[in-house]
Amino acid sequence: MSDTAAPLTWQLIEDARARIAGRVRSTPVLTSATLDELSAARLYFKCEMFQKCGAFKARGAANAVFALSEDQARRGVATHSSGNHAAALARAARLRGIPAYIVMPDNTAQAKRDAVERYGGRVTYCEATLASREAAAAQLVAATGAAFIHPYDNLMVMAGQGTAAAEFLEEVPDLEVLICPVGGGGLLSGTAVAAHALKPGVQVFGAEPAGADDAARSLHSGQLQGAGHPRTIADGLRGALAPRTFSEIRRGVTDILTVPEAAIISGMRELWEVLKVVAEPSAAVPYAAVRAAPAQLRGRRVGVILSGGNLDLDRLPWAP
Amino acid sequence: MSDTAAPLTWQLIEDARARIAGRVRSTPVLTSATLDELSAARLYFKCEMFQKCGAFKARGAANAVFALSEDQARRGVATHSSGNHAAALARAARLRGIPAYIVMPDNTAQAKRDAVERYGGRVTYCEATLASREAAAAQLVAATGAAFIHPYDNLMVMAGQGTAAAEFLEEVPDLEVLICPVGGGGLLSGTAVAAHALKPGVQVFGAEPAGADDAARSLHSGQLQGAGHPRTIADGLRGALAPRTFSEIRRGVTDILTVPEAAIISGMRELWEVLKVVAEPSAAVPYAAVRAAPAQLRGRRVGVILSGGNLDLDRLPWAP
Repeated sequence: MSDTAAPLTWQLIEDARARIAGRVRSTPVLTSATLDELSAARLYFKCEMFQKCGAFKARGAANAVFALSEDQARRGVATHSSGNHAAALARAARLRGIPAYIVMPDNTAQAKRDAVERYGGRVTYCEATLASREAAAAQLVAATGAAFIHPYDNLMVMAGQGTAAAEFLEEVPDLEVLICPVGGGGLLSGTAVAAHALKPGVQVFGAEPAGADDAARSLHSGQLQGAGHPRTIADGLRGALAPRTFSEIRRGVTDILTVPEAAIISGMRELWEVLKVVAEPSAAVPYAAVRAAPAQLRGRRVGVILSGGNLDLDRLPWAP
Repeated sequence: MSDTAAPLTWQLIEDARARIAGRVRSTPVLTSATLDELSAARLYFKCEMFQKCGAFKARGAANAVFALSEDQARRGVATHSSGNHAAALARAARLRGIPAYIVMPDNTAQAKRDAVERYGGRVTYCEATLASREAAAAQLVAATGAAFIHPYDNLMVMAGQGTAAAEFLEEVPDLEVLICPVGGGGLLSGTAVAAHALKPGVQVFGAEPAGADDAARSLHSGQLQGAGHPRTIADGLRGALAPRTFSEIRRGVTDILTVPEAAIISGMRELWEVLKVVAEPSAAVPYAAVRAAPAQLRGRRVGVILSGGNLDLDRLPWAP
């Protein structure tokens, strides 16, 4: 399952759909004449903030947990994450009745700790560096025998994330373009494979903060680039591609569009004001990219995946 | 059409559905395991913030405008309103290609003026008293010959608002209770008539701010009561029942539940945080009523109509 050479296939996404049916939601698609006018395109919004746990991550986590054999599952699952994947994995493990061991940096926001604990996740805190997260997770896996479920560098997770695009194209078959945010690349990989399988000729774009543009740098240079020093409000998009997701993105993605911070914030506000959905900053990034009306998207039927809606309402970026 | 003696009938609501189909949206229904747990009931949320103009008012306005004969419509429509009805009427009039004359108090928030003007409404400003609004509207009607479309004391408006409950019960046929906010009573009247026609035995509740409780006082005393001096953040619910809506409510509504201001604000915040929808204060009132887990609702399947999502994001009630 963690064979880095195996590519993501449509069959894996179809299997994921069957496996997670009834365990995640089929989310609604919204439209807005006002946002169409502002972006000079015809937009359809797949609302993953209405997904279980408030983000698309519920899909990949459920697929990964339920794809384990009885024998693999018995000792539980583990991950390191400060974000939506942690809660999604804890939830999926609870559904299956197995333990979830979650490593979180000790500076994780209280709301995110609460979400994981609400689902019965067993949290271990560590220092807020990638090295210490990885060390703590490796130690946990060694001690418990739990299966490590990476937030995106995992074929079953990527396949689960691809189910959002599959649903989307079934509901709106005449989409010409799909666009979603890219952090580690799990959602974008799944979106590309599902889209090309269901509708040859559709174009797939990623959208990324200009302040965390490793995916754009990687795609444009043809070489996998590190995260560097990401600076963005879009906390879900600070990670870097893995070799596996980079390879899918090179194969199936037309381009990665980058978005300045001010456009992320104003795009997020437009989604709240006009579409009336609570979109987290990461979810606003693809809308902000479309809102700039780039020549590649003008006048087209664009499917935008709004990835999630988890954020602190006491700290809105437009607060005075 | 403005015969105060004629009751609202299911036939008028069915006619409204046919008339406004394609002119308003059929809005999605959302659920949340977390909110079910908090309220000790099974909740279904009909999301009218995703309606055209961001509120259910688009339904009644479209029905009233398209129910006019060619001859009546030619000279346009008029109303006085500072809220969602004004924008909804301007939009419906534009769809029909006739003028909309809107009287607004001169202290109306800029966002609401903009909404009406965006739809081509012709705005007349007046002093912020009911008397001066009514006088200005009467003058306009006399000068233009426009048809006056009251925000709720109008049979076609009430019938249009009833289409939300009709859709709701078709999508979730096993609802045991429907609850919606009550201001002037147009939505609650339509909801009651639709619900009893489609599902005899269903109970219908209204929900109202404790600081603007004329409907509860009217129902409990059996006598139509005035608005008094409403004090509530729920700006859509400050109006008082009309004889026509009071009569429907006495006939079809089990009870009116009242909600303190603090519960409106915390309920609104829970809708944003958990359901991920932008609900305006008025829309949070029925959820807040259910959230108090009154004995009448505990353990039941409750359909909650979230009436709209128009508000100023710079002035959120939980801002520090």
